[in-house]
Order: sequence, then structure tokens, then C-alpha cells
Amino acid sequence: MTSKTLFNRMALIGVGLIGSSIARAAKLQGAVGSIVATARSPETRRRVAELGIADQVVESNAAAVEGADLVIVCIPVGACGPVAQEIGPYLAPGAIVSDVGSVKGSVVRDMSPHLPSNVHFVPAHPVAGTEYSGPDAGFAELFVNRWCILTPPEGTDPSATEKLAAFWSLLGANVETMSPEHHDLVLAVTSHLPHLIAYTIVGTADELQNVTRSEVLKFSAGGFRDFTRIAASDPTMWRDIFVANKDAVLEMLGRFNEDISALTRAIRNGDGNTLFEHFTRTRAIRRGIVQIGQDSPAPDFGRPHP
Amino acid sequence: MTSKTLFNRMALIGVGLIGSSIARAAKLQGAVGSIVATARSPETRRRVAELGIADQVVESNAAAVEGADLVIVCIPVGACGPVAQEIGPYLAPGAIVSDVGSVKGSVVRDMSPHLPSNVHFVPAHPVAGTEYSGPDAGFAELFVNRWCILTPPEGTDPSATEKLAAFWSLLGANVETMSPEHHDLVLAVTSHLPHLIAYTIVGTADELQNVTRSEVLKFSAGGFRDFTRIAASDPTMWRDIFVANKDAVLEMLGRFNEDISALTRAIRNGDGNTLFEHFTRTRAIRRGIVQIGQDSPAPDFGRPHP
Ligand SMILES: NC(=O)c1ccc[n+]([C@@H]2O[C@H](COP(=O)([O-])OP(=O)(O)OC[C@H]3O[C@@H](n4cnc5c(N)ncnc54)[C@H](OP(=O)(O)O)[C@@H]3O)[C@@H](O)[C@H]2O)c1
Ligand SMILES: NC(=O)c1ccc[n+]([C@@H]2O[C@H](COP(=O)([O-])OP(=O)(O)OC[C@H]3O[C@@H](n4cnc5c(N)ncnc54)[C@H](OP(=O)(O)O)[C@@H]3O)[C@@H](O)[C@H]2O)c1
Repeated sequence: MTSKTLFNRMALIGVGLIGSSIARAAKLQGAVGSIVATARSPETRRRVAELGIADQVVESNAAAVEGADLVIVCIPVGACGPVAQEIGPYLAPGAIVSDVGSVKGSVVRDMSPHLPSNVHFVPAHPVAGTEYSGPDAGFAELFVNRWCILTPPEGTDPSATEKLAAFWSLLGANVETMSPEHHDLVLAVTSHLPHLIAYTIVGTADELQNVTRSEVLKFSAGGFRDFTRIAASDPTMWRDIFVANKDAVLEMLGRFNEDISALTRAIRNGDGNTLFEHFTRTRAIRRGIVQIGQDSPAPDFGRPHP
Repeated sequence: MTSKTLFNRMALIGVGLIGSSIARAAKLQGAVGSIVATARSPETRRRVAELGIADQVVESNAAAVEGADLVIVCIPVGACGPVAQEIGPYLAPGAIVSDVGSVKGSVVRDMSPHLPSNVHFVPAHPVAGTEYSGPDAGFAELFVNRWCILTPPEGTDPSATEKLAAFWSLLGANVETMSPEHHDLVLAVTSHLPHLIAYTIVGTADELQNVTRSEVLKFSAGGFRDFTRIAASDPTMWRDIFVANKDAVLEMLGRFNEDISALTRAIRNGDGNTLFEHFTRTRAIRRGIVQIGQDSPAPDFGRPHP
């Protein structure tokens, strides 16, 4: 325990990229007294114990939450409902229950009904990640200077929201609060649509008859390889996201389709001015992202050049 | 002059990212006896002289090519025709004339008619670059372990093609030869379509009413920021590419649209299996690219994490 300790006992349900990064960061920062973790498979539980990133590894979700004043569910969004149902009866009165799911409307809808009224439910989404999964992929710095969005349902005790905000700040994140619906719209454009498009184009490139896969790989440095990183993300997680955030994703897809039709028309008509004008506007966005420290100004993201 | 010297005098017309990288790499490797450079604007010529990356900086394209046994035109593809017309009369007999344009069919069509029959025209495209432009953006290692595609027109003297291939190999590149038409199809999928899609989605995100620009920037680490790098590339260069490679780009866009419709349908129907199956297949491509050394396996391309 240090003066920074915010919770006595944190339970992590699911210890993949996000869960294991929370464990590492919380330990590094002394944010919690102790960490108890569990995961679905014996392999992951064993690996978490080996890594030593939790103080205790237990075999069931129910055992994990007992006596915990902070519970964070770190599993694919489609699995959150059943887990809430499982842990509901074992939660300590006054505990804060949270998650890290990339969709918030569906998680609130799926988890809320199973949580007793004497706990505080404060859903969260740290907007940070990599293309890798599992407990070995996490690291303590993942959340530093990234945003964590909290979406407390109406009527949530503000002090519970503040306490979870303080936790995420201690892990290095900037915290913002918004409604689950607005979160899902914002993330549809900043995360879900980009992933869908990346998955699509990588699939398209792989199915051409007149260009071989070996050519696609060899000449990928022309731009394509940037998309393959995102399209290597975990299929289960992303399946769940698109199923859970269908409406917002379909709305953003509609906008995207209109815009790509307009640019297609400009290409077909050889309308260089329209293309030039569009390509000039989009540069400003990149500058803005680099300016606020959400990406590196180094060429090629700072990729190593031999 | 070293034992590696392949050409006595290399002329560079245009000294931006690519031209200045060639100058730096050729000097580092001792690939040429001397370098003469020119650029359209006095500012760029002055900067090139300051940087000391050429042995001589001259004011006109005609003056640059005189006495050069290697001439490389490093300017946007739409400008290649007029420049070929300008230099045609001044080229030394036996010189190799090349370019670095991202489209090859149009460059061959635009330049060939202006080149005298006593020079060797060997078009080239180094598949390497960053999102930055201008003589300061270049570096000697840009081409190392990247591919350079040569598209010699039928009837080209094979020894000229071999000599240019040796030059690019010395700069660190792997060299491949193919027809201009096939090049344009391959690059349409590995470079031009990705850029068009990135430019589109960045524009889409910037025009939403229900999500602010500040939200798009803040939460861009969810995936969107990867697209903004590509969409920050030079507008003139990319306008020219889409005008010049219209047919192949439209063909690839057609395929992409079919594929995105299929995934949209799966989302609309809540068809998780189709999504999962698609997302699983695309991972293999990433693995392939990393395996052949065309991208870094480091999470997030090796972006700095604080
Ligand atoms: N990756 C990102 O970039 C990112 C960013 C922000 C938020 N998120 C969100 O964070 C959550 C976890 O993502 P992650 O990247 O940490 O995933 P991950 O590395 O794949 O880890 C997932 C964890 O969930 C467990 N799990 C999977 N399916 C389950 C089920 N049906 N029931 C119970 N447990 C299950 C896994 O257990 P086993 O190991 O035993 O299989 C594993 O411990 C997801 O909701 C995701 O939307 C991800
Ligand atoms: N960037 C990449 O990633 C990449 C990769 C492979 C191939 N390429 C190809 O390489 C070529 C050059 O690209 P780059 O990235 O080096 O561009 P860059 O950094 O913008 O430099 C372009 C050069 O071309 C000159 N120029 C521009 N318009 C001209 C015109 N109308 N007439 C004569 N000169 C003109 C510029 O002169 P001023 O400076 O005086 O204006 C400058 O010296 C393009 O054909 C591009 O398709 C680019």
C-alpha cells in the first residue's frame, strides 16, 4: 500500500492485452493494494501466474470478485452479459464494477440487469491497444497519454465515477465522460470503420486473380502494409464489436460510401482539381493528431529503416 | 570514383523525397562519379546546394542532362512528358534515362516519344517512401530492403536494364522487372487503392455533424490515426497518380466495393460467423509481410510508447 492506493483489492476477469496492461500499470503505480486475476482457460491462468503480474490467480469468476472493491471485466464485449450474470451474486457491497469493452451501449444493456443495486457500475473504454493479444502482449505504458472514456449510466454515484477516473489517471490516461450512445458513434468512426475497411481491403488484395499474393506482400510498402497491421487484430474481439455496434457502424459506412463514390467519379472524369482539393484538406487532420500527441511525427510512424 | 562506380555522371531532375534519397544513397555507396541536380524552383535548388547532396546544382533541365550517362527524372508523373520533351535534344548518346514515377504506363506513353533513339529508356519505380516531401525528407537508407520495379519497353537493350538494376541493387533495393501494365495493376492494389481509401475515410471523419473534429483527433488511437499518415501524402503527386492510373484504380475500386458490400451485409444480418471467418483469413497476410521483412513485427509499427 502506498499513499496513491485507490482500491484495496482489484479483480481482473480476463487477462489479455488490456487486462494484463492494467495489472502491470496498476502495480507499477501502486494504484491498488492487491490484484486477483482469473481467465477462462487454464493456459492463460497459468501464464498469468508465471508472469507474476497478479498477486493471486483464481479459477473462477465468482472467486475472483469476492472481497474486491474494484472489478474490471476485460473480455470480448459479446461475453460480458453472461459474466455479469455469473459474478452478480458474489460482488461485495459498494464495489465498483467496470469493463474495458470497445462498445458501450451493448455492454451497459447486457451487464446492468445482472448487477445488484448495492454496487456501482461505471463502464469504461481505454482507447489504446496494439494488434497483439494475450497476457504477454500487455505493457504498463499502454495507457499513457491515451484517452479512457467512462460512460456511467444515469443515476451513477458521481463519487464512484470520480474514483474510477482517478484510477485511470494514475495509469497515465486522460479521462473523458460521455453517454454510451455518443461513445459508440465516436468510436464507430475513429476505430470501427477503420478496422472494417482495413479488413476489407486486405481481403480484396488477397483474392485477386491478376495479382499474386507474393506480389501483394513484396510491394506492400507502397501503403498496403499499413492496413495489414489493423487487419491482424483479434477476430473474436472484432466480430463482437461489429455485432454489438451495428447501427453506428452502418451509419458511418453509409457516409463513407457516399464519399468514396464522389472520389470515384472524380477519377473517372479525370477531375484532378477535385482530387487535389480533397487531398489537401485531409493533411490538416494528420497535423492535428500529431500536435495533440496522439501520433508520432516520425516518418512512417517511426518504423525502423535499416 | 570507386570500384563500385557504375556511372560517371548522374543527373537528377527533381530533388524531393525520392530524388534526394537517391542522391544520398548513390553518394554513400559510391555508385556514381558525380551528381548534378536541378529542380523547378530556385528555393529547392538553393536548399539542395546547402544540403551538399549533389556535386553541382544547375538551373535548367537541359543543362543538367548534358554529359550525363544516367538521367533520373524524380517529379510527379503528370510532369514527365513535358520534361522529356525539354531534355530530349540535350541527352548524351548512349545515356540511360529513367524515372521513379508511381505509375508506369502513362510515363512510358508520355516520355518515350520525346526521347532520341540513341538513348536507353528504362522506367523505374522504387516502392519506398514516407509521408513527407522535399529535399530534407530524403535519407540514404530509404531503398534498403525495398523493391524497385523496372519496366523496360519492348526492345530495350538488356544491358541497359541490367546496369540500372545494378545501380538500384547498390542502393540496397531488390529489383524486379515487369510490364508497365502489370506494374500499374499491382500498384493499384498495393498502393493506390490504400491511399484513396485513406484519403476518403479521413475526409468522411472530418465532415460528420454528430462527432466533432476534436473528438476524432483525441480518440484516433483506436485505429483512425493509421490512415491519417497515408492521407497526409503530397496532394500533387497523388492527384497525378489517380489521373494517370485511372483504369486499374477503377478496377480495384470495383472489387473493393463488392467486398465491402458483403461485409456490410454480414453486419446488417448480425452474421458473426462470416465476420469471424473473414477476419481470421486477413491475419495471414500480415504474417507474410512481416516474414519477408516488408514490415516491422513491433507492436504499432514500433511507434514510441511513452
Ligand atoms: N485490443 C485492443 O486494442 C483493445 C483496446 C481497447 C479495448 N479493448 C477491449 O478490451 C477487451 C479485451 O480485449 P483484449 O485485447 O485484452 O483481448 P485478448 O488479449 O484477446 O484477451 C481476451 C481475454 O478475454 C478472455 N475471454 C475471451 N472470450 C471469453 C469468453 N467468452 N468468456 C470469458 N472470457 C473470455 C480470454 O481468456 P483466455 O485467454 O482464457 O481465452 C482473455 O483472457 C475487449 O472487450 C476489447 O473490445 C481492446
Ligand atoms: N513519395 C513517395 O512515397 C514516392 C515513392 C515512390 C515513387 N514516388 C514518385 O516519385 C516522384 C517524386 O516524388 P517525391 O515524393 O520525391 O516528391 P516531392 O518530394 O514532392 O518532390 C517533387 C520534385 O518534383 C519537382 N516538381 C514538382 N512539380 C514539377 C513540375 N510540374 N515540373 C518539374 N518539376 C516538378 C519539385 O520541384 P520543386 O521542389 O522545385 O517544387 C520537386 O523537386 C513522383 O513521381 C512519385 O510518384 C514517390
